[in-house]
Formats: sequence, structure tokens, C-alpha cells
Amino acid sequence: MSRQQREHLNAAYRSRPRPVTPPTAEEQRAGFAAALTRPALEDVAVRRTALGGRPALELAPAGTAGPGRLLYLHGGGYLVGSPDTHAGLAGELARRAGLHAVSLDYRLAPEHVFPAAVDDGLAAYRELLATGTDPRTLVLAGDSAGGALALATLLAARAAGLPQPAAVVLFSPWVDLALRGGSLRTKADADRIFTEADLRAYAAHYLGAADPENPLASPLYADLTGLPPLLIQVGANELVLDDAVRLAARAGAADVDVTLEIGGNLPHVFQHHYGRLEEADAALDRAAAFLTAHLGAAVTAVTAVTA
Amino acid sequence: MSRQQREHLNAAYRSRPRPVTPPTAEEQRAGFAAALTRPALEDVAVRRTALGGRPALELAPAGTAGPGRLLYLHGGGYLVGSPDTHAGLAGELARRAGLHAVSLDYRLAPEHVFPAAVDDGLAAYRELLATGTDPRTLVLAGDSAGGALALATLLAARAAGLPQPAAVVLFSPWVDLALRGGSLRTKADADRIFTEADLRAYAAHYLGAADPENPLASPLYADLTGLPPLLIQVGANELVLDDAVRLAARAGAADVDVTLEIGGNLPHVFQHHYGRLEEADAALDRAAAFLTAHLGAAVTAVTAVTA
Repeated sequence: MSRQQREHLNAAYRSRPRPVTPPTAEEQRAGFAAALTRPALEDVAVRRTALGGRPALELAPAGTAGPGRLLYLHGGGYLVGSPDTHAGLAGELARRAGLHAVSLDYRLAPEHVFPAAVDDGLAAYRELLATGTDPRTLVLAGDSAGGALALATLLAARAAGLPQPAAVVLFSPWVDLALRGGSLRTKADADRIFTEADLRAYAAHYLGAADPENPLASPLYADLTGLPPLLIQVGANELVLDDAVRLAARAGAADVDVTLEIGGNLPHVFQHHYGRLEEADAALDRAAAFLTAHLGAAVTAVTAVTA
Repeated sequence: MSRQQREHLNAAYRSRPRPVTPPTAEEQRAGFAAALTRPALEDVAVRRTALGGRPALELAPAGTAGPGRLLYLHGGGYLVGSPDTHAGLAGELARRAGLHAVSLDYRLAPEHVFPAAVDDGLAAYRELLATGTDPRTLVLAGDSAGGALALATLLAARAAGLPQPAAVVLFSPWVDLALRGGSLRTKADADRIFTEADLRAYAAHYLGAADPENPLASPLYADLTGLPPLLIQVGANELVLDDAVRLAARAGAADVDVTLEIGGNLPHVFQHHYGRLEEADAALDRAAAFLTAHLGAAVTAVTAVTA
């Protein structure tokens, strides 16, 4: 166990300075990128591309020649973050799962409010299918707001009559913009990254005039029937801990195969700290194994059909 | 039709044919054993023994020579079931995890009310430690009421100042004898094994005069701090689905490392159907992998210390 690593990480988050005047969206994006960007490792080839009419980053780990594809949706409260800030995290998941990944630069708030991001997610998903990706070889993953966006994309795809992918992995998904989780109170001291005010500000920017319970903005309130197997990983030191718990409960009750992993004393999207936090590497390995287990049968079936 | 007539009619539909005279506990045990017993496979050596002053069944899968030990606590509502009815299930988990198992014949209600079963669990755990089992090489597992009893045993062990084991696996644990889970209503039609009345009867027999929220009878209401990594598997077609969900939420919030797996459209303790249900075998394989992953480091450490 890496008690020391966890404590070190929590202390680092705790000591962050807070700005006196509220920064602009652009300042927040620059600050987030400076603080959190982790580039992809050298054995992951990175290429700029486009998908569904938006910029995107292709991440091709060395030695991955199979048909498996990962669509990644980064987090950042729909306000900050980009495929570049998350190239390391998405690349690590892709590398460990042996998949080619594409990470989408969906439109952000406040310039583009809901449902712009969902429209971009659906357009990307649609183009992947239209250009020949078999949905049985396709998986989705996302963190924080990107986790909710991954679900919203699949709900929009279902509504559009498109097939579902093989599996989904969510890191600390933020699926309730109505902010009803009990952990907003019980984890207020434990969460050293967010305050409830932060989350309210992100939600307000993104929602514009939309209902916080709109199921495409807050997939917690969606009918999740028919979604593919779902792995949710979350830390216990999170305001949004109960987003993950309630999502697992609701998806499971709707007969979706769900795995929920809660990591004690871990912060929001702790997987970001791969290579320096034992639990991050172990979680990414389990996430990759989950994806390959569900792709395994699918990829074999596709190979048999196309052979 | 009048409201009264409708209610009368609905009540009539609801009342399934039941035996005219309620069966005795002994008759229920015989019926359960006849319907559900699965003996251990041929490559698992079975031997009758004693543990903590109670009868027990030793299950030694062929080729397991390591120090790892599994203490198994069978289900049956604290009223029915035995190490013999569950020899197959406990043996399968032990075989897949490469562990020697011992399955405890704890005292049953209504002859022995709470906390007799917990006393037996603690006595068994205490004897395992006293006779040289390193807790880092010890894991617990249980199903249904036995899952709750596994937790109660560890809570009693914590209170007695004993060390915790390396990991715990629970199949469809029944941890709320106050019966507050929402799935008691939402899954009333989906659960073809139990009615709420069945659960109320089991709880009444076991509790005697005890409070249903006593944390050793209903570990959902316990402070779970300090418990080892916990894997909970549950089916979606269960009255006690929300026992598993709420247990995961509560343990996770207390910084226990928790994994919750919800299997869509699966019944109570579906793992019992290994060899004839794909999901049962897959779930047992994941449970075994979970145990060996947490024993792995522990067994290596013990070997290093004793070498």
C-alpha cells in the first residue's frame, strides 16, 4: 500500500494557492493546462486529426495493430482541459489496453453551452461508425465531466438508433449537475480539489438555461437501459463520490452490468497520477483489463465474421 | 368495481399457495438442502473438522500447498444451509483462488438467536489466528446472511483487538435486517426467490429481542473503518440489491477499498450456478482473482519474514 504516496498527494492538493480575483475562462484553461498536463509517453505516437467536425488527438501506442478503438472524453468541468492536457492519461489507458485512441476536443462552456458538447460527442461517435469502426471493437472512456459526456454520447447514440459500443470506463464521473449527492457535504473537508461553489459555477456555465436534471447533461437522471458494461472508478475523498455510487446503483437496477470501485483516501481522477501513485497504476491496469475483457469476445467475433 | 373489491382481488392474486401448516425449521433445512446442495468437485478433498468449538468442513483443492486460507460462511437466512449445502460454492471459490478453505457450521436460529452466530464466527476467526494463521494470508467470504456474518465477524474481531484479514468477498450480502432498501419494492417482481415476508420471517427468527440496527446483526449500520479490501457481487434481480449498493457506499465513504459488481438480470447468489451459468463462473473467477491479488503481496511478505 502506498499510504505515504496518498498523503503526499493530498498535501500537495491542499497547499494550492487560490486567486484573489476570479480568473477568466481562458486564464482558467491556461492554469489548468500548466498545472495538470501530462504528455503521452514516448512509445505512444501522437497525431492531430479531426473527428465529427472537431479537432482531435490520435494516440497510437507502439505495437497496437488490432481493430480495437478507444474514444476518450477529457474532464475539466466542461470549461477547461483538452486532449493535450489529458494525452498522458488517455494514452496510458490506451497503451495498457492495447488500443488506438482518439481524444475529442469537444466545445467548451461558457462559449458553447449544453448541448454543444453532447452534439460533438455524438458527431464523433457517428463518424467512427460511419468510417467503418465496428461498435463491437469500440470502447469509450472519460473522466469527471468527460465521464458524464461519454454516457450522454451513448444516450444520444441510442436515441439516434446507433448501436452501443463494447464497454465504457469512467473515472470519477460527474453525472449530477443538480448536485444532490450527500458526499457534497460529507466529503467537503476530504476533497482538496473542489468546493461545492466550484461545481455550481461549472454547472451554471455549462447548463446555460438548461434543466440540471436534463438526462443528457446529468446522465444520473437518464434511463440507462441498454448501456454496455460499465466500470466506474472513484476516490473516497471526492465531493462527487456519490455521483459514482448513485450512477452504479441506477445503472445496475436497469440491468446494466456495472463495476464500481471506490479507492479509500484517494482524490478526484487519481488515475492522472500514474507512474507516481501505486493506486493510479493499479486502477489503470484494471480499467484496461476490463476493456480488453469485453473487447476480447467482440474482436474475436469480428475477426471470425471478416475472415 | 369498488376499491375494496380491487384490493381484495389483488390480495388474492398476491397470496401464492403456501403450505397449510408452516414448515418447522428442520423441515425448511431439509427442503433447502434437497433443493440447493452442490457437493465439492472431485479435485477438492473434503474433511470434517472443528473450529472455534463448532463443526466445520475443510476443503482442500488439489495442488494448493501455499499458506493462503479462506474462512467461508454459508448463507440461508441464519435459519437453513450448512457447510454441506455450500461445499460446492465454497470449494469452487477456494479451488479458483488456490486456497485451503474451512467452512463453519455456525449455530442457526430460531434455536440460537443473535449473537450466537457472530460468537461462533469470532471464535472460529480467533482459533485460526491462535493456531498460527497469519492474518495477511487469511481471507473471508460468505453469501447472503453469511456475507453479513463475515462482516460481523470482522467487526467483532476489531472490537476484540484482533488484526484484520487480507480481503473479503461477499456474494449478495444481506446486511440490513431493518429491511430499508428501496429494492425491496423496486425488485419485488424481479426477485423470484424471496418475498419481503420471507426476509421479515428470517430476521425475526434470528434477531429474537435484538435491535434490527444492531451493527453486528446488520453491518450496514456499523462503522466499517479499517476493514480490508472488499469485493461485493450482487444480481440485479434481488430484493437485497440495495443492501449491496448501500454497503459499498458506506464502506467506501469510510475509506475501505471497495469493489461492487452488479450483474444485470441475475438472481440471489447466482454464483451457486457455476458450471451451468457463464456469469457464475466469470464472477467466481473475478472473486478468486481479487482474493489472490490481495493475498499476493501478503503471502510474499510472510514468506520473506519467515524465510
